[in-house]
Amino acid sequence: MQTIGLIYNPRVEASIPLAQEIAAWLESRGVSSWLCSTHKRPADGACLFKSDLLITLGGDGTILRAAPLTAPLGIPLLGLNLGRVGFLTECEPEHWVEVLERILANEGSVEERMMLQVTHLREGTMRAREFALNDAVISRGALARTVHLFTTIDGAVMTEYVADALILATATGSTAYSYAVGGPILPPWLDNIVVAPVAAHLSLDRPLVLNAQAVIEITVRATIPGMVTIDGRLVGELLEGDCVRVERSPLKARFLRLRNRADFYRTLVARLSPRNSVDTGN
Amino acid sequence: MQTIGLIYNPRVEASIPLAQEIAAWLESRGVSSWLCSTHKRPADGACLFKSDLLITLGGDGTILRAAPLTAPLGIPLLGLNLGRVGFLTECEPEHWVEVLERILANEGSVEERMMLQVTHLREGTMRAREFALNDAVISRGALARTVHLFTTIDGAVMTEYVADALILATATGSTAYSYAVGGPILPPWLDNIVVAPVAAHLSLDRPLVLNAQAVIEITVRATIPGMVTIDGRLVGELLEGDCVRVERSPLKARFLRLRNRADFYRTLVARLSPRNSVDTGN
Amino acid sequence: MQTIGLIYNPRVEASIPLAQEIAAWLESRGVSSWLCSTHKRPADGACLFKSDLLITLGGDGTILRAAPLTAPLGIPLLGLNLGRVGFLTECEPEHWVEVLERILANEGSVEERMMLQVTHLREGTMRAREFALNDAVISRGALARTVHLFTTIDGAVMTEYVADALILATATGSTAYSYAVGGPILPPWLDNIVVAPVAAHLSLDRPLVLNAQAVIEITVRATIPGMVTIDGRLVGELLEGDCVRVERSPLKARFLRLRNRADFYRTLVARLSPRNSVDTGN
Amino acid sequence: MQTIGLIYNPRVEASIPLAQEIAAWLESRGVSSWLCSTHKRPADGACLFKSDLLITLGGDGTILRAAPLTAPLGIPLLGLNLGRVGFLTECEPEHWVEVLERILANEGSVEERMMLQVTHLREGTMRAREFALNDAVISRGALARTVHLFTTIDGAVMTEYVADALILATATGSTAYSYAVGGPILPPWLDNIVVAPVAAHLSLDRPLVLNAQAVIEITVRATIPGMVTIDGRLVGELLEGDCVRVERSPLKARFLRLRNRADFYRTLVARLSPRNSVDTGN
Repeated sequence: MQTIGLIYNPRVEASIPLAQEIAAWLESRGVSSWLCSTHKRPADGACLFKSDLLITLGGDGTILRAAPLTAPLGIPLLGLNLGRVGFLTECEPEHWVEVLERILANEGSVEERMMLQVTHLREGTMRAREFALNDAVISRGALARTVHLFTTIDGAVMTEYVADALILATATGSTAYSYAVGGPILPPWLDNIVVAPVAAHLSLDRPLVLNAQAVIEITVRATIPGMVTIDGRLVGELLEGDCVRVERSPLKARFLRLRNRADFYRTLVARLSPRNSVDTGN
Repeated sequence: MQTIGLIYNPRVEASIPLAQEIAAWLESRGVSSWLCSTHKRPADGACLFKSDLLITLGGDGTILRAAPLTAPLGIPLLGLNLGRVGFLTECEPEHWVEVLERILANEGSVEERMMLQVTHLREGTMRAREFALNDAVISRGALARTVHLFTTIDGAVMTEYVADALILATATGSTAYSYAVGGPILPPWLDNIVVAPVAAHLSLDRPLVLNAQAVIEITVRATIPGMVTIDGRLVGELLEGDCVRVERSPLKARFLRLRNRADFYRTLVARLSPRNSVDTGN
Repeated sequence: MQTIGLIYNPRVEASIPLAQEIAAWLESRGVSSWLCSTHKRPADGACLFKSDLLITLGGDGTILRAAPLTAPLGIPLLGLNLGRVGFLTECEPEHWVEVLERILANEGSVEERMMLQVTHLREGTMRAREFALNDAVISRGALARTVHLFTTIDGAVMTEYVADALILATATGSTAYSYAVGGPILPPWLDNIVVAPVAAHLSLDRPLVLNAQAVIEITVRATIPGMVTIDGRLVGELLEGDCVRVERSPLKARFLRLRNRADFYRTLVARLSPRNSVDTGN
Repeated sequence: MQTIGLIYNPRVEASIPLAQEIAAWLESRGVSSWLCSTHKRPADGACLFKSDLLITLGGDGTILRAAPLTAPLGIPLLGLNLGRVGFLTECEPEHWVEVLERILANEGSVEERMMLQVTHLREGTMRAREFALNDAVISRGALARTVHLFTTIDGAVMTEYVADALILATATGSTAYSYAVGGPILPPWLDNIVVAPVAAHLSLDRPLVLNAQAVIEITVRATIPGMVTIDGRLVGELLEGDCVRVERSPLKARFLRLRNRADFYRTLVARLSPRNSVDTGN
């Protein structure tokens, strides 16, 4: 570890002083570091390229914003949780010294997570390509309630969803928006794709789980514009006849992990169970 | 194809004359055949061993009953659908001549499907081992409403389900009992395991989808007996402290297929969509 | 019956010639009539005031557009179904002669249905008031995914929903948008109010059913604008701190009915059951 | 208040000494009292008849067992919560002195709650009649997975449920078993009836909410015995052709309440929201 980037969420007050404190601490151990807000690109692009690790200070949203920087370069991410939920973050902020000491001692291992490649096609021509760590959402625009989405899987007709939106989620994203519409939970190391409609109206309403090789193509049949949202960021408008192709990305998100897989189930029950549920000593 | 077994469901009236008609037809083409009720074991065990194919005449339940005969021997199954749902069956009965002609002409291919191995342990000793094509269900017995099921995955504590039952389903079983409790749909060629509680009461109620390598262990904590049901057959009683281990079976169910994978989505929409849904020309 | 209005949906081609055919038929029986598109106001307001009945030619959406005209005047509605679903419509178009003959013979009875009064308040001042036959929806605007909706019932704090939207539906609306998000079904003659979140994220996600006297107040806590939609029509923008009060309207929608209540269950099963469900001879 | 009964759950250790302590306290204030286990009938029936109040020491299950004693006599119930959930109980055990002082000072008011009357008919003849505070459940017996339940509402054919069970719940019971199968939440003072299937298989799977006047008749069509369970107690076996009629009971359960209705929503969010949900200061 020679260079570590620190990405902070400027909306979380505590994140800036903490980033500065960590930078000083790293400096004192001979590790150079650089700071950047999630809402900006790093001032010096070179510093990103030579980084061995990116630490995010914020919540899961901060990691979602950092992933597009790190994934193409293969740089691992580590999230200090200053937010509320924290399925993606690795440690609580009060433990940062211990965590960083272990990392500088080369503890931990890199966990790879599947991402989705999302291609927007108009009349057969690619207009944009993005990748998603959590999910891609094809939805109505502001005005209409439902959108008609003609959907094929591996070239076979699946159905025409009539819904508020269609979510295409990774296993990582299965505990995010897909969860809110009744989708199943997948441990984040799985390579499946979840297809879950939002408020399906008289069309198939149950989530599908597909394998990593599946190619899903969604053609907009509504006469009013729809939208594509990737990991919560609006990335494009869809006109009638536009197609969105969703498939496994060749890129992987990489996370530096000190905790083991058992921790995923512990987090799951701690966060998603009803408050009054049976105490299992987790 | 030298020998084909015909398994009929004696509760479906049409199945016996149809089995006899098919046997005569096969004979006329130089293929020997034998008949057996789903409710009996084949009279001559040897005929099973030398069979190249087993044809079932009934519904999905008939296939579920035939699978324990064929899976250990690697014999493929082909289902003529005399029942109602037919996710497992391959063809409607009126097409049997065409289908068998194609099969004798060596058309079609064998599709393998993952099964679950279900081991019942008492005080660390194995009492029984079964395999499931659709699902294993750990449930309350007749009297009590809920059962407490302490559940680990790959040795990590998951949660204690308080529920009517816990379903562990293959992808094949995802459109059966698991579907009825809100589970996601998985194309049957996937190698995932679905864990879905029935009527979870103040405990985690969302279905989980795990990968094929997952080992799930469920320990009964209730003071009244529970039950294990495999593919709809009651196979054992569970006392307090008994453990059921569910994992991928080394055995695969083999199905002879003339239709392609696109057909799965067609069947899905045809059967599970609301009656009044959008017509997609499927 | 001296005057009958005919409201047609101009987007449904068959509706205009049918409206003209009905108008001629009524004329020949001494009943005067007038025609109007759902997308316009009646040219001669007086004709609306003196009408004894309004017949809609379209789908449920056509009735939703006609209700604001008729409800304040107490004029009953009768829907000829030229659409797809038809929970609100009374008869299929091929039976219109028989239906109108029975109506002119004074058969049938008027069924009253509860509506919701929806009041938009900003800093304590009323900005707008509308009524809803199906539902009022408080949702995010175009950009954000979730909206924070602090909700009280009868002055008591209920919860803060974090969701795509919150639906407040009548029993009549329980088979519309509320159904698509998992809401329960209520026969339309019930006087309950359904409160159902869309894609609730880590907040209470289960629909509530309240009694007719309930007063629900929803205060927007997001910093980006939200929207209010009534029966599918966008009626207003919500700023942070705006409050929407939803309660029973003193107005009732009136429907002329020739069919009895049993018909509701028949329609329900015919439209919402899976295609492959048990045939009960309905 | 001259006589107060104390019903304790013998399985909850703390309940007996607490009952004795309360009895002594009441004696010192000139109120006579009597103690009884939930698992027995009061030794001296007369003491029940002259009681002004019954206090239960246990959880919601203890109240469910006491209700059949008090409802026919119109005696109000008050629940000290020694259990886990406590939608029915009124106060936590540490506050019992304060609560009883207020009650002896004639504070509080009686809240009436609707109960269901459940009649078991065989060949048109009544075999048994019970009433339910939470719910009546018509289910499969021990062996079969699904039961076929032909269901009418007010004499109109509804549907034939193919399911593990059918739950008929009061508003009070909407947060119990019905909740576990996806049913909506109703404040307990509502007079609706909820009809919710458990694991409906290719039949209507959405809960229905009916009004208080609804009469539901369920005829068992399976060839193997089913069961009727009332408030968690198995009360009868159902043979093919048996009918269960469910309707509003003329009896009301009466609860002595010191808290107001707002408290219901507070309890709801405290118990049913995910642990990590937004804090609304409830």
